[in-house]
Amino acid sequence: MTSEVKIHKRRLTKADGRTLLLYGRDPIPENLTAPSPEGAGPAAPNAHLRWHPLRGEWVAYAGHRQNRTFLPPPEYNPLAATTEGSSPTEVPAGAWDAAVFENLFPALTLAAHDPPILAVPTEPGKGVCEVVVFTQDASSSLGRLPLWHIELLIAVWGDRYSELGARPEVQYVYPFENRGVEVGVTLHHPHGQVYAYPFIPPVPARELEQQRAYYAREGRGLVEDFVAREVRERLRVLYDGPEAAAFMPICARYSYEVWVAPKRPAPSFADLTAVERRDFARALKTVLMKFDGLWQQPFPYILAFHQAPTDGADHPEAHLHAEFYPAFRMPGRLKYLAGSEIGAGVFTADTLPEQKVEELKAVAVDIDA
Amino acid sequence: MTSEVKIHKRRLTKADGRTLLLYGRDPIPENLTAPSPEGAGPAAPNAHLRWHPLRGEWVAYAGHRQNRTFLPPPEYNPLAATTEGSSPTEVPAGAWDAAVFENLFPALTLAAHDPPILAVPTEPGKGVCEVVVFTQDASSSLGRLPLWHIELLIAVWGDRYSELGARPEVQYVYPFENRGVEVGVTLHHPHGQVYAYPFIPPVPARELEQQRAYYAREGRGLVEDFVAREVRERLRVLYDGPEAAAFMPICARYSYEVWVAPKRPAPSFADLTAVERRDFARALKTVLMKFDGLWQQPFPYILAFHQAPTDGADHPEAHLHAEFYPAFRMPGRLKYLAGSEIGAGVFTADTLPEQKVEELKAVAVDIDA
Repeated sequence: MTSEVKIHKRRLTKADGRTLLLYGRDPIPENLTAPSPEGAGPAAPNAHLRWHPLRGEWVAYAGHRQNRTFLPPPEYNPLAATTEGSSPTEVPAGAWDAAVFENLFPALTLAAHDPPILAVPTEPGKGVCEVVVFTQDASSSLGRLPLWHIELLIAVWGDRYSELGARPEVQYVYPFENRGVEVGVTLHHPHGQVYAYPFIPPVPARELEQQRAYYAREGRGLVEDFVAREVRERLRVLYDGPEAAAFMPICARYSYEVWVAPKRPAPSFADLTAVERRDFARALKTVLMKFDGLWQQPFPYILAFHQAPTDGADHPEAHLHAEFYPAFRMPGRLKYLAGSEIGAGVFTADTLPEQKVEELKAVAVDIDA
Repeated sequence: MTSEVKIHKRRLTKADGRTLLLYGRDPIPENLTAPSPEGAGPAAPNAHLRWHPLRGEWVAYAGHRQNRTFLPPPEYNPLAATTEGSSPTEVPAGAWDAAVFENLFPALTLAAHDPPILAVPTEPGKGVCEVVVFTQDASSSLGRLPLWHIELLIAVWGDRYSELGARPEVQYVYPFENRGVEVGVTLHHPHGQVYAYPFIPPVPARELEQQRAYYAREGRGLVEDFVAREVRERLRVLYDGPEAAAFMPICARYSYEVWVAPKRPAPSFADLTAVERRDFARALKTVLMKFDGLWQQPFPYILAFHQAPTDGADHPEAHLHAEFYPAFRMPGRLKYLAGSEIGAGVFTADTLPEQKVEELKAVAVDIDA
């Protein structure tokens, strides 16, 4: 038994005005300063939103981003600690475990103003786009981090939920990770992102609609009951801890889709207790190690965390959960989202989750190693 | 002025029981027979649907497809006409312009039965998956076909709408094309597909919901007014004919997204008059030639056609239209759908449609050549 992870946080400001947050298990040294890449200015794209009347959703336009003069040399890693004698990066050298800073070229900014007047409704693209540096070790990955470090990241996601969600402009805080060149990632340093939207995005909005109807009908949470049933059925379970579970859902759309959730209907990362963070970390690490162990290679995916909106309303229906959308359906064979998936919204699978989950079950992992 | 395209159709049955339809401007010779690839049996996957309670949508599972013994040699083109002395393909040699046959490995079949009883609602995966061979010329493309041939394909899509939509199992007929290896296509012979679903798929369902609300409020169609406004604004228009228009929509999500629609709120391809088919063909060909001309290379895309459901209800709100989702945002640079698009449903663009459309406007094309 390890003791509870305490999280330390230090707020710094970059020369270009952007915020840098450093998080650590140990106190962050007071002498650290916030570097800025050379030639990087505040991007201030003054994004705006346009209403898509046929889909009934907002589309964000950052237009021509200003001050996009920053052209890093190849092999330059902006997420590595700045070292003496080399170009400044986004984070300082020193004792910290995770870092969060505002994206240099954000899709949304709190300073957005005066959207164009168009034939469809428009709004300023007010929001926040943050980069979350998972570790100082460029060669690591979320799943290879020790459990205490994943627990710390869960606390960081909780901190971002609380801080960003408290802003009146922000209605939804969305942490995610894109992993692998297959999903468009060019920067291999382990990192994720947090988008804070000024509206509830379509995918979680749709999920919340289903959850609300279920809650009104059953008096319990849809995800709570879904998790309990998966754990009871056992068929598709990859991790069953005291506080959290990981499983391939009965309605998996991707060949290796996996969900992770606390068993209690906690609405967000900010609501998790230390014990729950710890078990959620164990569930996440189990899945991530199984993914990488499956074909003995880094497993590309989109990892989406859905939480309760921060729109001021009550959301007893909301239940924090992670959805992994892996890019591959077979070794080296991508799942392309094409006509049926993108143009109609219908996923067609030629495998069953009951079959595919056996492959992941068979991967032995030791998360305490 | 060319005369109206008459469409001739002949129905044949393959040895494995699948239907083959041949379409032509001239009558189809009576002596043609329907080939089947060697070793191909009726796939009969007995697909089933599972309800995804969190997204509120159906997911289709074809499970282990039976009789998947058909392993074509490399370079074998199943969409080329069968020639004497070589392996049989899916279509015969002879005088025809377009062919439609049931997919050898369909995601949905009308014979589906007895879905598994699971903890979520299930249904048999009843539906039809057809392949539409656009031409006998393997080196051509939809946009390089002469106008009369595109008109004929529009009539074929109309025929499929009428025939498949008349089946009681079918609630939605969806023609589409995936073009290019970038969207997962491995077969380069010009072809599209038609999926006939036993439910209204999520994307058109969402669009119809917006259209219904607009129709109830305004007494006119959302797409009708949208097209009329784009044509009036002129800013983003690529083709403005007497009956049809093509434009980059004001709320484009992809860098080179283009819509094509008849100006009259025709609910489906089956409802188009010969004059409307002709102008729709001119609009489609204009867009396709501009796409391929932009970087002087085949332009990969998903092309989705949305029509009125065939669920037996009235749909005065529905208006046939095409949506092109191009895969590239810059030459050689794919638009990856990642965390924000897939996990949240929010598209973020760093260009404006008003800028990008100028590139397509500048591509001179001669569709009558």
